[in-house]
Amino acid sequence: MTVSHTVSVDLGERSYPIYIGSGLLHEPEFLVNHIPGNSALIVTNTVVAPLYLEAVEQALRAHDIRHDSLILEDGEQYKTVATAEKIINCLLQNRHDRQTSLIALGGGVIGDITGFAAAIYQRGVHFIQIPTTLLSQVDSSVGGKTGVNHPLGKNMIGAFHQPQCVIADTDTLDTLPTRELSAGLAEVIKYGLIHDADFFDWLEQNIELLKNRDYAALCQAILVSCNIKAEVVSLDERESGIRAILNLGHTFGHAIEATMGYGNWLHGEAVATGMVMAADLSQRQQWIDRTVKLRTISLLEQANLPVRSPPEMSVDDYMQAMVIDKKTVNGTIKLVLLKKLGEAVISSDYDPALLEKTLLEA
Amino acid sequence: MTVSHTVSVDLGERSYPIYIGSGLLHEPEFLVNHIPGNSALIVTNTVVAPLYLEAVEQALRAHDIRHDSLILEDGEQYKTVATAEKIINCLLQNRHDRQTSLIALGGGVIGDITGFAAAIYQRGVHFIQIPTTLLSQVDSSVGGKTGVNHPLGKNMIGAFHQPQCVIADTDTLDTLPTRELSAGLAEVIKYGLIHDADFFDWLEQNIELLKNRDYAALCQAILVSCNIKAEVVSLDERESGIRAILNLGHTFGHAIEATMGYGNWLHGEAVATGMVMAADLSQRQQWIDRTVKLRTISLLEQANLPVRSPPEMSVDDYMQAMVIDKKTVNGTIKLVLLKKLGEAVISSDYDPALLEKTLLEA
Repeated sequence: MTVSHTVSVDLGERSYPIYIGSGLLHEPEFLVNHIPGNSALIVTNTVVAPLYLEAVEQALRAHDIRHDSLILEDGEQYKTVATAEKIINCLLQNRHDRQTSLIALGGGVIGDITGFAAAIYQRGVHFIQIPTTLLSQVDSSVGGKTGVNHPLGKNMIGAFHQPQCVIADTDTLDTLPTRELSAGLAEVIKYGLIHDADFFDWLEQNIELLKNRDYAALCQAILVSCNIKAEVVSLDERESGIRAILNLGHTFGHAIEATMGYGNWLHGEAVATGMVMAADLSQRQQWIDRTVKLRTISLLEQANLPVRSPPEMSVDDYMQAMVIDKKTVNGTIKLVLLKKLGEAVISSDYDPALLEKTLLEA
Repeated sequence: MTVSHTVSVDLGERSYPIYIGSGLLHEPEFLVNHIPGNSALIVTNTVVAPLYLEAVEQALRAHDIRHDSLILEDGEQYKTVATAEKIINCLLQNRHDRQTSLIALGGGVIGDITGFAAAIYQRGVHFIQIPTTLLSQVDSSVGGKTGVNHPLGKNMIGAFHQPQCVIADTDTLDTLPTRELSAGLAEVIKYGLIHDADFFDWLEQNIELLKNRDYAALCQAILVSCNIKAEVVSLDERESGIRAILNLGHTFGHAIEATMGYGNWLHGEAVATGMVMAADLSQRQQWIDRTVKLRTISLLEQANLPVRSPPEMSVDDYMQAMVIDKKTVNGTIKLVLLKKLGEAVISSDYDPALLEKTLLEA
């Protein structure tokens, strides 16, 4: 018997549901009810395929949906235009038409590449997300951002393309490596910081349960996170304003990822350190108390996340990477900073000298 | 003194104007009023750059808009993902942010690639079309279809991305090679066939003036063509139905282009032959009179366009290429056919044996 929650992402004709719960992969209806045509391509990777591909194929077989599977290498370093082209080659070689559905089975990298391929194949085909990591369940599967990396910057090539539905089966977290569970918790903690002080308190109280993969605690954390993200995305689908608060820690984090080489720091780890830097600059600006910064550091540390910048990175390394951030306009770096616990702002109204101090001492 | 017409493409918040007239390239306001940021990248090719790049650069300089130019090779064979990546590299290397505008200066190939790069750079930036061929003025600049080719099919990778505006300076047609003028007339004739019998009559009466580049006749032909396309696109922006009638002759035509190698047959030439094949099948189905087919052939011949299939192409060549057409669903090839002069339908309700005859005897 499956217990599940549903979060609705409200985007007019592009609205879709997120199903969250245990055992969803073994309930074919969640998937097949959202496949409008009678063909599909499952895109997954070498780590996830042995664990969950059979369950998805079985659901499609049971409903006579013609399907192919493509198993990619695992890792952020494969999140490239070349990999998106691989997916498109597979679609064309197997004669998938414009009514086909792409099913992303895996973490954020699989979701982002597959979504991008779905956005540009024949000018857009259907897309379903089955996120199998905590990070992708709370973050990349919500909001329709798809894309691939460029050697000069992360997610520089992409599109907004909303899925038909998202199926977050919490059972898949049982097989998630501990390091990736922590990386997902970084994004969960982010939602508390930017939007919900009570949730931040709850996370402080439940961090041990979450680390121990307590089912009820994880389910609650995913539900609240998806609700917050869905609310923010509904207000600003294409990120012309408020949506950018979801990038707390990401401008610093992307700089770390790009400088250190994609895949060496996990995205969530880089974001954790980036959030500490954002909190640090917010405190230097006297927008938040020192306590908020210290609580942030402490919670991230309890989640086994890095809170210090890699020692080999200089201020210049950061500045060079940050100037090509997507939020940068006319050379001015916009940052997501904290006004208080539970409230973020997008601002270029910070003292550059204080930013330099943050970068130096991080 | 510039005389110009404006066609409004009505797509809600994505609406935009098409300016049509003589001398528009020397009136900077048409361009700069539609550039929201203060930077731009002009994308053009080796043929168009010596003729018109300076005029566009001057307009941007006069209004202090920081700009770069990228000059690509000329030809359909460069309409690839690799070329789109070149544009993106240029944008990143020159630090263009999300507020930048891409200006496509050239024919349909330049417009399609540049539009696609604009659609996927940082998940979408502004885009302006300055079409310099008759074909792109009446066709590819209207409606927001962007894309690149794949070895297995034309325009298989792409996105819908509407421009901020289209500037169709009819003076640019003075330098257009005769063969390309004819290719453009193929699409003009298409609008009469699918939507406006009176316009078809007018074209029969004015074909000599059009071939001789009579300014008033060309202006009228472009205006009527853009109006028809704008009307159809407004009804069905993402081609879920009626919009597909704009593809009269294109399913056959794409098969010719793909089989003969991109760039050997011009797109308009392949469409001309494809329209004859569509008329032939429509007549075999007894949907149109023989006269309509003969008038179609005669008008296309007067416009110096090919009306016979390349002798080296077999029925199998056609079928193989047509089965991966974007309109094909579950292996059934949908074709745009004529119900009468001035009225097209999208149909899979034709006799396959008659289709084979058309392909055999074309």
